[in-house]
Amino acid sequence: MSVAHDTVNKIIADVLTKQKIERVWFVGCGGSLTGFWPGKYFLDCEANHLAVGYMTSNEFVHATPEAVGKNSVVILASQQGNTAETVEAARVAQQKGAATIGLVYTPETPLCKYSDYTINYQWARYPEKVDPAQQKAAYSLWLAVEILKQTEGYACYDAMISAFSQFAGVVNHAQQQVKEDALRFAEQWKDEKVIYMMGSGPSYGAAHQESICILLEMQWIHSASIHSGEYFHGPFEITEPGTPFILLQSAGRTRPLDERAIRFIERYQGKLQCIDVEKLDIAALPASVKEYFCGLLHNCVLDVYNLALATARNHPLTTRRYMWKVEY
Amino acid sequence: MSVAHDTVNKIIADVLTKQKIERVWFVGCGGSLTGFWPGKYFLDCEANHLAVGYMTSNEFVHATPEAVGKNSVVILASQQGNTAETVEAARVAQQKGAATIGLVYTPETPLCKYSDYTINYQWARYPEKVDPAQQKAAYSLWLAVEILKQTEGYACYDAMISAFSQFAGVVNHAQQQVKEDALRFAEQWKDEKVIYMMGSGPSYGAAHQESICILLEMQWIHSASIHSGEYFHGPFEITEPGTPFILLQSAGRTRPLDERAIRFIERYQGKLQCIDVEKLDIAALPASVKEYFCGLLHNCVLDVYNLALATARNHPLTTRRYMWKVEY
Repeated sequence: MSVAHDTVNKIIADVLTKQKIERVWFVGCGGSLTGFWPGKYFLDCEANHLAVGYMTSNEFVHATPEAVGKNSVVILASQQGNTAETVEAARVAQQKGAATIGLVYTPETPLCKYSDYTINYQWARYPEKVDPAQQKAAYSLWLAVEILKQTEGYACYDAMISAFSQFAGVVNHAQQQVKEDALRFAEQWKDEKVIYMMGSGPSYGAAHQESICILLEMQWIHSASIHSGEYFHGPFEITEPGTPFILLQSAGRTRPLDERAIRFIERYQGKLQCIDVEKLDIAALPASVKEYFCGLLHNCVLDVYNLALATARNHPLTTRRYMWKVEY
Repeated sequence: MSVAHDTVNKIIADVLTKQKIERVWFVGCGGSLTGFWPGKYFLDCEANHLAVGYMTSNEFVHATPEAVGKNSVVILASQQGNTAETVEAARVAQQKGAATIGLVYTPETPLCKYSDYTINYQWARYPEKVDPAQQKAAYSLWLAVEILKQTEGYACYDAMISAFSQFAGVVNHAQQQVKEDALRFAEQWKDEKVIYMMGSGPSYGAAHQESICILLEMQWIHSASIHSGEYFHGPFEITEPGTPFILLQSAGRTRPLDERAIRFIERYQGKLQCIDVEKLDIAALPASVKEYFCGLLHNCVLDVYNLALATARNHPLTTRRYMWKVEY
């Protein structure tokens, strides 16, 4: 059993010695919320009885759902473990009787104080240094899978465990594979003033994350995320020749939604960068579960594109106007 | 009993003669999805047992949640009743055994065919011609309230009914009140190339709707929606003197999140248009439920701002590049 598997397996088993699990909330801020997308999407698709929530921490604190209570699990994340709203959300959840699971990169930080269980995930600015199956977003999927397995049961559990064990190989290969394309992309996109991120199903979270954490936050490029299916119901009117879209094409059941958006953008000559997991060997994973790894794989290859873009723009990913610098 | 109250009361009572209601999905595209925000937010806050979903139609069709079945209600909307993905979503939901409730403006349209119950809502380009309590978004709240009342019970039900009966008065007064400000806004904002929409809690849906349906779709202005709480976790880095933000300030429990964002934008000299429901007599509604009307009120006063903006830009709200014009 891998470290991650053993960790989540024991946590959920222990929770279930103390309470039922009927409701699960994923709670965090920014990239620590969007990192939960893979777990949320999995449960939205697969759960028959569990109820699933996904909320930014301060909304959870101020408009705490009535249902949070002793049959709930609240899963929270904070890279440094000190995001004030997330620490407070964990305290509120605990006070209402929920089990709290805190994901942090930096151990023994304030979030841990209000977490019944703590998971230390791996992270690095240089992606090759981490095990992709032990990153924050991967843990959201691990937790979702274990919760489903240990409550309702999950027929594809073995395939899922097998996929996790193969995932590092897929990621490492994909990151090598996109290196050249990332350099070309960076050169051709470095002067864009607005970039739309698109995706659907398992990869919508990665699209939203790229928009808020990389383009807006780290590159100061105007950006919005548009669901590939929603595109046709309003946002597509912004498309004219040259309008820039990055589309994260998934290998899941919503792939036809991505394909339709691609056809439209190409027809009306938008500027399109497509990152297609089908071309990045996602098919090496078991067919029954590969869909759930699309967003995780997109996250990992975007690391390569982002570093290339930041370099080409001479705007390092660590540059900030406000974060870590001013009170807010 | 008002027409709307009578309609939803009978529909939900009838559903419950045939099945239990354990899960509710709101399904639509574009403004017909965001219009469901008031109902979704209400149930997210108040429900103890119900599970709530909110999905764009084509994702519902392709990645249909396992849990959709005979204890589910699926609520769908389409203005003309002919949005292909939404019609198909209703068919899929029915086939899986769920009760379907279709909201349409145009009666006897394809969505009605797959709706066990149909609601004809009011709509008009000129807002003063409709009863705000019978608009699409208001029906999402009506349905949510009746479902909660008739399943788990809802302590503030009488206050809610009373608020609905007063709502037209609040809206009419607010629409008069903002007329002058809308003209000033339109003049000062007509040349903006990018506008960010912000909101939280009950009004986040209205902020998102304004971004996708008005700014992107009807005005071809680049736009994204940012949750007031999420702003500080990435997106705020885009703020510099003059960056344009429209913030829909709610009177709900998440108002402190809006206030914090306003303070930050003002401090760093962003260009800010705040639409504060506290200044638009939302307090005329019973305190226990007024929060749930914030998004509806924002929708209604935005109608006034949007007409003024479109006029100042000489870009009518009906102008389209693609919709109704090309196949897609």
